[in-house]
Amino acid sequence: PLIAILPGDGIGPEVTAEARRVLDALDLGLSFEEAPVGGAAYFSAGHPLPPATLDLAKRADAILFGAVGDPRCDALERHLRPEQAILGLRKELGLFANLRPAKLFPGLEDASALRPEVAGAIDMVIVRELNGDVYFGEKGMRTTASGRREGYDIMSYDEDEVARIAKVGFETARVRKGKLCSVDKANVLETSQLWRDVVIEISAQYPDIALTHMYVDNAAMQLVRNPGQFDVIVTGNLFGDILSDQASMCAGSIGMLPSASLDGSGKGLFEPIHGSAPDIAGQGKANPCATILSAAMLLRYSLGMDAAADRVESAVTAALTGGARTADLGGTLSTAAMGDAVVKALG
Amino acid sequence: PLIAILPGDGIGPEVTAEARRVLDALDLGLSFEEAPVGGAAYFSAGHPLPPATLDLAKRADAILFGAVGDPRCDALERHLRPEQAILGLRKELGLFANLRPAKLFPGLEDASALRPEVAGAIDMVIVRELNGDVYFGEKGMRTTASGRREGYDIMSYDEDEVARIAKVGFETARVRKGKLCSVDKANVLETSQLWRDVVIEISAQYPDIALTHMYVDNAAMQLVRNPGQFDVIVTGNLFGDILSDQASMCAGSIGMLPSASLDGSGKGLFEPIHGSAPDIAGQGKANPCATILSAAMLLRYSLGMDAAADRVESAVTAALTGGARTADLGGTLSTAAMGDAVVKALG
Ligand SMILES: CC(C)[C@H](C(=O)O)[C@@H](O)C(=O)O
Ligand SMILES: CC(C)[C@H](C(=O)O)[C@@H](O)C(=O)O
Repeated sequence: PLIAILPGDGIGPEVTAEARRVLDALDLGLSFEEAPVGGAAYFSAGHPLPPATLDLAKRADAILFGAVGDPRCDALERHLRPEQAILGLRKELGLFANLRPAKLFPGLEDASALRPEVAGAIDMVIVRELNGDVYFGEKGMRTTASGRREGYDIMSYDEDEVARIAKVGFETARVRKGKLCSVDKANVLETSQLWRDVVIEISAQYPDIALTHMYVDNAAMQLVRNPGQFDVIVTGNLFGDILSDQASMCAGSIGMLPSASLDGSGKGLFEPIHGSAPDIAGQGKANPCATILSAAMLLRYSLGMDAAADRVESAVTAALTGGARTADLGGTLSTAAMGDAVVKALG
Repeated sequence: PLIAILPGDGIGPEVTAEARRVLDALDLGLSFEEAPVGGAAYFSAGHPLPPATLDLAKRADAILFGAVGDPRCDALERHLRPEQAILGLRKELGLFANLRPAKLFPGLEDASALRPEVAGAIDMVIVRELNGDVYFGEKGMRTTASGRREGYDIMSYDEDEVARIAKVGFETARVRKGKLCSVDKANVLETSQLWRDVVIEISAQYPDIALTHMYVDNAAMQLVRNPGQFDVIVTGNLFGDILSDQASMCAGSIGMLPSASLDGSGKGLFEPIHGSAPDIAGQGKANPCATILSAAMLLRYSLGMDAAADRVESAVTAALTGGARTADLGGTLSTAAMGDAVVKALG
């Protein structure tokens, strides 16, 4: 199988390099091809998602992605900014389902701002829709009747878009604790009303799953008050953006958390949830674990190599248990030394 | 001055009754008129915001509001649901500026899910725009070209709407610690790009205020990681809905936090941030402090009675310091007994 490696900006190259070392060490017969993306691609090829990069992403069986974002690009027009690369990949490849597990790793109880007993109970997956919502509707600047500048963005979902992500939510809950919480703002938004209606319709196919509904403002409260109440949350692109970052931070370890963005056939893009962290780029300070765990998700979801995925995940836990810590976890290991610890723990 | 009292649903009547007792005890020569709102108004008058209630709200100098929301109304058409009353009041009265202070009260360190040292640092105000955004744009259900149901909502802001709420944000920061953080999603939304552009333009009038910008997903993380970093946050209607509830929960005491919704001339609607809590309605268990503190904001913002507002706020703190606690704070006092404790502490 061909793995596309898109290191991107900031700490992206450092962390993807360690994840690749872990994949190499597993000796699975994978082949790798690398291409620039984000700010790096803008500077080298004039566009954050150059045709050659998109082509590689399409050819590959799975994509390991670092991070995009470069402050030197802040003043560029929107379509040239690094973030457009990830939005473009999600859309062009039909990666509509974003899975973000959030849990507290053993030994990292002190990393969360939440009380240890509250944070320790976090073990959830947020399933976020990635191809629709206000992200991809018509948008622009216009002038009002009274001659004022106005910005606008159309939020929408149709029933097929909701149904396919709802199914991912229900399926995810089925292999976990069987609880699905759908988050919307149906008391205000018609998009959310359709969302809720369709989720309820689809729930007829999943009588074994306990479905609940929660308004997004309440969900943001409950994620602080008692995050342990959640098993799987399914929500739209915008609410998922906010809640999944919040949940990661509740778990305390944004340097530890991976994500998968999947199409309907198992192909996917796998990336750490953290950003490009330009302030520490190139210094060997970044924690590579989130990217290593993203590589594990890649093995599991795109290549069906569950045993190899388990090995990687166990190795990360073993390295942590053995005391390996980068700076974000209160330790002193470099990015490469943390990668070493995981490779060594593979056995 | 005439105060409209709109008790609403669930615990609304209980908590507004205690706030009114506190106002009475101050002997300020206020007059009061009461009217139904929300589910209570739907059942008694066929509409969540009957003409007589809206008329009273318009005539009054300020409005003390309880809470709306009644599960018996869940199946009603949107325009008849209790929430429409508060949305209607905000829009009809031009209450565009929602001020929500969040802080941890002394002695309530254990009420937050955040570590005491993190929660104890919270002392912020969220300034939320209330008259625009995706709440009030065109919305509806339609059929796509391929015959599928689709829900849609138009998000938008024009420059005047952004400018007037930005000014409230800057003015609020000016009488606090001089720090304003504007929250948007300008990397994806044109509405947010206009928001950010206008906030920057207005900032020229406030050279004394330190302005920063943050994406909403990052803000949701930072409110967990280190909420003490914020002084004033200014944001749109939807992001404000989510972040202000999250911030309240971080402070741990949603039974303690008030809010003000103001028009441009100081007239306002004042309500606790909590909801109608139908599960404990009528049992005398609700904490009236959030509503009592909302009455203090009413005195301060709509009537210019700062000394009286200070007295009320000090009395609430004194009652807490004296050990008065309702069930939500781990105590045993009834709603009325907590009201007594505050009235007594007025001295
Ligand atoms: C970079 C940005 C466009 C992106 C998003 O909003 O989806 C990011 O926040 C994420 O969650 O992957
Ligand atoms: C009841 C609901 C419509 C309302 C809102 O979303 O504005 C509430 O959540 C609030 O924050 O006052």
